[in-house]
Amino acid sequence: MTETIIKVNLNESPYDNEKIHNRWHPDIPMAEMVKPGDDFIIECVDWTGGQIKNNDSADDVRDVDLSQVHFLSGPVGVEGAEPGDLLVVDILDIGTFEESQWGFNGFFSKQNGGGFLTEHFPEAQKSIWDFKGMFTSSRHIPGVEFAGLIHPGLIGCLPSKDMLEEWNTREKGLVDTDPDRVPALATLPYGDTAHMGKMTGDSRDAAAAEGARTVPPREHGGNCDIKDLSRGSKVYFPVYVKDAGLSVGDLHFSQGDGEITFCGAIEMAGWIHMRVNLIKGGMQKYGIKNPIFKPSPITPKYDDYLIFEGISVDEWGKQHYLDVHVAYRQACLNAIEYLTKFGYSKAQAYAILGCAPVQGHISGVVDIPNACATLWLPTDIFEFDVQPNADGPDIMLDGSVDVPLSKDK
Amino acid sequence: MTETIIKVNLNESPYDNEKIHNRWHPDIPMAEMVKPGDDFIIECVDWTGGQIKNNDSADDVRDVDLSQVHFLSGPVGVEGAEPGDLLVVDILDIGTFEESQWGFNGFFSKQNGGGFLTEHFPEAQKSIWDFKGMFTSSRHIPGVEFAGLIHPGLIGCLPSKDMLEEWNTREKGLVDTDPDRVPALATLPYGDTAHMGKMTGDSRDAAAAEGARTVPPREHGGNCDIKDLSRGSKVYFPVYVKDAGLSVGDLHFSQGDGEITFCGAIEMAGWIHMRVNLIKGGMQKYGIKNPIFKPSPITPKYDDYLIFEGISVDEWGKQHYLDVHVAYRQACLNAIEYLTKFGYSKAQAYAILGCAPVQGHISGVVDIPNACATLWLPTDIFEFDVQPNADGPDIMLDGSVDVPLSKDK
Amino acid sequence: MTETIIKVNLNESPYDNEKIHNRWHPDIPMAEMVKPGDDFIIECVDWTGGQIKNNDSADDVRDVDLSQVHFLSGPVGVEGAEPGDLLVVDILDIGTFEESQWGFNGFFSKQNGGGFLTEHFPEAQKSIWDFKGMFTSSRHIPGVEFAGLIHPGLIGCLPSKDMLEEWNTREKGLVDTDPDRVPALATLPYGDTAHMGKMTGDSRDAAAAEGARTVPPREHGGNCDIKDLSRGSKVYFPVYVKDAGLSVGDLHFSQGDGEITFCGAIEMAGWIHMRVNLIKGGMQKYGIKNPIFKPSPITPKYDDYLIFEGISVDEWGKQHYLDVHVAYRQACLNAIEYLTKFGYSKAQAYAILGCAPVQGHISGVVDIPNACATLWLPTDIFEFDVQPNADGPDIMLDGSVDVPLSKDK
Amino acid sequence: MTETIIKVNLNESPYDNEKIHNRWHPDIPMAEMVKPGDDFIIECVDWTGGQIKNNDSADDVRDVDLSQVHFLSGPVGVEGAEPGDLLVVDILDIGTFEESQWGFNGFFSKQNGGGFLTEHFPEAQKSIWDFKGMFTSSRHIPGVEFAGLIHPGLIGCLPSKDMLEEWNTREKGLVDTDPDRVPALATLPYGDTAHMGKMTGDSRDAAAAEGARTVPPREHGGNCDIKDLSRGSKVYFPVYVKDAGLSVGDLHFSQGDGEITFCGAIEMAGWIHMRVNLIKGGMQKYGIKNPIFKPSPITPKYDDYLIFEGISVDEWGKQHYLDVHVAYRQACLNAIEYLTKFGYSKAQAYAILGCAPVQGHISGVVDIPNACATLWLPTDIFEFDVQPNADGPDIMLDGSVDVPLSKDK
Repeated sequence: MTETIIKVNLNESPYDNEKIHNRWHPDIPMAEMVKPGDDFIIECVDWTGGQIKNNDSADDVRDVDLSQVHFLSGPVGVEGAEPGDLLVVDILDIGTFEESQWGFNGFFSKQNGGGFLTEHFPEAQKSIWDFKGMFTSSRHIPGVEFAGLIHPGLIGCLPSKDMLEEWNTREKGLVDTDPDRVPALATLPYGDTAHMGKMTGDSRDAAAAEGARTVPPREHGGNCDIKDLSRGSKVYFPVYVKDAGLSVGDLHFSQGDGEITFCGAIEMAGWIHMRVNLIKGGMQKYGIKNPIFKPSPITPKYDDYLIFEGISVDEWGKQHYLDVHVAYRQACLNAIEYLTKFGYSKAQAYAILGCAPVQGHISGVVDIPNACATLWLPTDIFEFDVQPNADGPDIMLDGSVDVPLSKDK
Repeated sequence: MTETIIKVNLNESPYDNEKIHNRWHPDIPMAEMVKPGDDFIIECVDWTGGQIKNNDSADDVRDVDLSQVHFLSGPVGVEGAEPGDLLVVDILDIGTFEESQWGFNGFFSKQNGGGFLTEHFPEAQKSIWDFKGMFTSSRHIPGVEFAGLIHPGLIGCLPSKDMLEEWNTREKGLVDTDPDRVPALATLPYGDTAHMGKMTGDSRDAAAAEGARTVPPREHGGNCDIKDLSRGSKVYFPVYVKDAGLSVGDLHFSQGDGEITFCGAIEMAGWIHMRVNLIKGGMQKYGIKNPIFKPSPITPKYDDYLIFEGISVDEWGKQHYLDVHVAYRQACLNAIEYLTKFGYSKAQAYAILGCAPVQGHISGVVDIPNACATLWLPTDIFEFDVQPNADGPDIMLDGSVDVPLSKDK
Repeated sequence: MTETIIKVNLNESPYDNEKIHNRWHPDIPMAEMVKPGDDFIIECVDWTGGQIKNNDSADDVRDVDLSQVHFLSGPVGVEGAEPGDLLVVDILDIGTFEESQWGFNGFFSKQNGGGFLTEHFPEAQKSIWDFKGMFTSSRHIPGVEFAGLIHPGLIGCLPSKDMLEEWNTREKGLVDTDPDRVPALATLPYGDTAHMGKMTGDSRDAAAAEGARTVPPREHGGNCDIKDLSRGSKVYFPVYVKDAGLSVGDLHFSQGDGEITFCGAIEMAGWIHMRVNLIKGGMQKYGIKNPIFKPSPITPKYDDYLIFEGISVDEWGKQHYLDVHVAYRQACLNAIEYLTKFGYSKAQAYAILGCAPVQGHISGVVDIPNACATLWLPTDIFEFDVQPNADGPDIMLDGSVDVPLSKDK
Repeated sequence: MTETIIKVNLNESPYDNEKIHNRWHPDIPMAEMVKPGDDFIIECVDWTGGQIKNNDSADDVRDVDLSQVHFLSGPVGVEGAEPGDLLVVDILDIGTFEESQWGFNGFFSKQNGGGFLTEHFPEAQKSIWDFKGMFTSSRHIPGVEFAGLIHPGLIGCLPSKDMLEEWNTREKGLVDTDPDRVPALATLPYGDTAHMGKMTGDSRDAAAAEGARTVPPREHGGNCDIKDLSRGSKVYFPVYVKDAGLSVGDLHFSQGDGEITFCGAIEMAGWIHMRVNLIKGGMQKYGIKNPIFKPSPITPKYDDYLIFEGISVDEWGKQHYLDVHVAYRQACLNAIEYLTKFGYSKAQAYAILGCAPVQGHISGVVDIPNACATLWLPTDIFEFDVQPNADGPDIMLDGSVDVPLSKDK
């Protein structure tokens, strides 16, 4: 029987669990040690550590303390791992807690985090998604049910001292170009709300003051939010410190490519079952800088798509140069507009794109000056036919239900 | 028997064929008229109109006249089509000419077009790909063979007068921000090499002077270079002028997401078989700005991938803000580095990423400041095992063969 | 939180659990009642009720009491269901018990049940399969690991009185054609080991004496052993009695098409999460005799196959007339012979075909006198390359490990 | 440019083409010789050699001379091939003739060939299918259009003398058990209508008298009618004679598993592009008796199925013992009954099952006494929704169109 080496209690503060941390730092002690070939289970709180509740108000999303995120379980040390190795991780399974069969999706207020379409959705909104086995649906968004592509949003190994310094330097450099921007250009170290695992005292305070925030993906993987790192996938992580130090959290029941709503996927607490192995000297052998991975043999097969194009002319008519970010935003806005024709509110449509197994493809990046991106919307997630026909769309929703919104205070 | 309504002769200049044009303008007369429900075949020259030859020198890629591209077949008028309609196009089949069983891929010189990785590959290079039925391989890149995901790189309807003006205005605005840049930020109208189909005399000259270049994708679709617009797909195009005016060209035997080499996919001459129908008033009914489409039921199934991550820190260590373009470039560079470990030159690896059915996903676009993009490399296109293992890669190529390069003059 | 309406205790006899039964009879009282739209969880013992143990001897397979099988959980009554309705069952999830992370596969002795290849494997053998999350492997069969296509082997509604009588009559008719055959042609009612759920006394004894055995699939579904009835599928069952009476059991972690080893798939105890709905009068509306179903959106994608053909000339050279059974047996024997070239024993190869997600296709049934069947062996389940090449196979196994065999007493 | 080594003329008799033959015999001279590594194109007439016409009468199907079939193109000799080798054939492409964009499907009269459901459809019927690129539809069966899974129904190498003798002996043995049966149990040698390629004179007559008919699949492959031997697949054929002697014909635009209508698939004339290689001594190296193959990376993806079960109790209530043939027939009859609820005639439904990419799975073959087979009907081939719902089916067809029938004379 596989051992659960890290457990969580959803009723206590993650700060009280010394096998949890919320910053990246090489000095964080290993929470547990395993051997190559071992498999083990790790439990995780949701990324906010329980700040968001299963109710019909978006107040908690509006008021979230983002300096606390993400609460990660780990680090797990792997005997024999050394800098330059590749840590091979088989994600054998991921699941929910029996007593917590729900997740949340939200849009942050532009004043507190924002998101991909924050200009269009400047205020906090939230939808709750119920789990029924492999499937999910939301009481705030009728007419849609789908199988979750469950995955960790955040996973990776501890950075070395040098790597940490490089992260802090380059991100501070970016913030310094526009220090007063709202939302900020990057999240810099912030000791007050840091949770450094087993560390205590002065060494804890010193590490907390320089520990990298967990928000962006970086060389080690980290907060990649790649929906395809799902159960059944195999990941090769670069190792930067002795014993590797693998941490994981931010579990998602499902997510669309881009995690465009930022808060973000269908966010949940749960557990992950992994097996670890090593490729000694693998970074050099294979020329690895960022993690590489192989997808799972088991994923939801939604093979019928309606595909929306977007180009890098923004919604106000401005021409951008090969900007895939702008192009994908247009594809998303096009899909949202389309879905409103069936009766969805724009917020409901946006939430669907953030939660469902939507694909985002970089289709063309050389045809100056326009990048072209495509958003692939699976049609089988809808309980009605969303395909175009000569008669035009039937309005399937009466507007009586919407995604709760909480105005900025 | 389905009629071939536009024919081409690969031995004559495309300028001599009045059913070809290389600019977008509402006044270009219809080359042929069809009715809703009709299916028909259209032949196309390659996008350069025969400038690139089946040989082992990249001189022609270096010296290409890019002001001539793309040579399109059309416009085909559809009876009854009016502005605001959706033109429904079933791509029933696409094929090669029996006498032209090859295609080309290249990198343009930075002095003449450049490309996605032009900083890394500043000089012209070319690879020739031979077709054997559905499969292709290159004498310049050993060890790789795959089934082509054949598609038109460029397809769409004529713009209206207003839309044309908007294009020209916004693109000139961009060029004006850095008019001397090499390569240029956009390609502006250029009458000298314009081919305006059946137009002649002063009206031809006037239209040529303002006709939009065909390089970028735009609201009408155009040069989207979406590999998934393959045979078997169904596309819904916005209509802007009476009779719609559907033109098509730039056929690709295969292409990776992004068409990262710019010259670009495996470029070919060939034919396309289409069926057209109308959704009257469909733009309004479905809120359509850009084309939408449904993928084909028949596409190459390469389900085993090795996936490379990239983040928006560039190859010189600079931090960019949620820049998917930079992130995808890093994923591509990571994949290239990986393939060199098996003996490929960097140019060979780059060409593979441009030609093979590689997927490019927008994985995360909200985790400030790093975007995360993934490049999905199908492993089954290689004749050897490219997956990581504990022993490290076997070097499968001896370096005796490479992609021809022609130095700038 | 979804309720578990039927629980089992793996340490007690299934005969002591009145929500279990092992015969089909219309008078068996409902174990629980639910409403249309409800979802609920049901626990199941393995089909033999715990007769087979996690050890390295096949004695228990040899000595199994097959008159006891299959132990089913149920029947579950659905309010409002009436004869002629369709009971729509969404299989929302299926899982294992934390304390029972293993399953078994075996070949019965020809003297006690036999199987598809009993002429070739006349004595009892057994393999144990360990579960690691979604994956399974066996200490008795090295070199193979795969994701399970988990499903119930047996599921369906109670028969009506008339239907039960028809079953008993036609099956006894068959047995009477060769009453002394070993193994028997069919399994007839047998009261001694019957478990009739909540029934007691004379009515129990009367029902036990005529209750249909659970071995074959019948009009109601029953022991179909269809591997594609996996979690995520949706099944439409005919209803024959008031309240329907849905029973389920014989859970399989994985199985190949045909369940050719009879004991059979990877057999396990576990739980199943379902949701029920009704289509009133659906049997008549849709002309339904046997259940119909839709496959799951989530199944293991093993898309690279090696496919073996078989025709209806048997292994002793005899010509049969369009006999798919013989043809599929030849395809299986061909695959077994092939796998021995890599070092597997024939028994190991046979067990792989019974357990792995192998497909069996009826390819041709009209080309007199030969039927043609194909067995699709997924190549990615092997840790080495099983594909043919010019050099011939590498022997990957040294024969030191085999599937335990127990000689007939 | 790939050479077409065998050409056909659809306007002349196949008997006049010496690169065609319609019997299997080791003495038939090679039509052409190729070398390992070569690729080449072969043209084929339809299996009846043009007996069936593109019209609206089934008279030609009723009156067909089945002693003439199948007309095969070949044999192609491969230099260096010897008995015991494996001939590796890459099917690079398959296509139609520009002047022959149609195919036929039919049910033979029970008096002249019959078929899988001949008891239910005892008289000749025919449907004509038009090709539009990759898609096909029939004027006799409204509401259905699909992409063809194009493949050769018949392909294989010449038998040796010994093998031929074994075939003739065992098939005659079967016929002798019921020599007057209609339809016959097997098709024995018949010299009158034999076409022995380049053979002439006495040797031709001697070979014609003993040449095996082409109807059944046999050890060499032959008339397997496996729909998955489609373009893009790779097949390993046993070699029995010097130079192998590969012949091919009976091209199908599409077919369902089982080719249940016998006449059969969507039958067509066309061409096939192949590449050949050898594995010396491969039969022994890999223990090969029948061909093995790998499926194509490019096939129609119809992933949404409605699946019908059938068990081995026949349509008259009789119990059969593990008879997959009977079980699949019940699954087919169940699907036909279902489709009639939407307005199809039974003949139309039967033709759809014979022509569309339907899957037939051997689901259970051990649960005495019932085999269980499943028929997988792709739902996306229909222009309307064929899935069950609470309201019951909409009748989509008015019965004004049906499949032509010709009564026995």
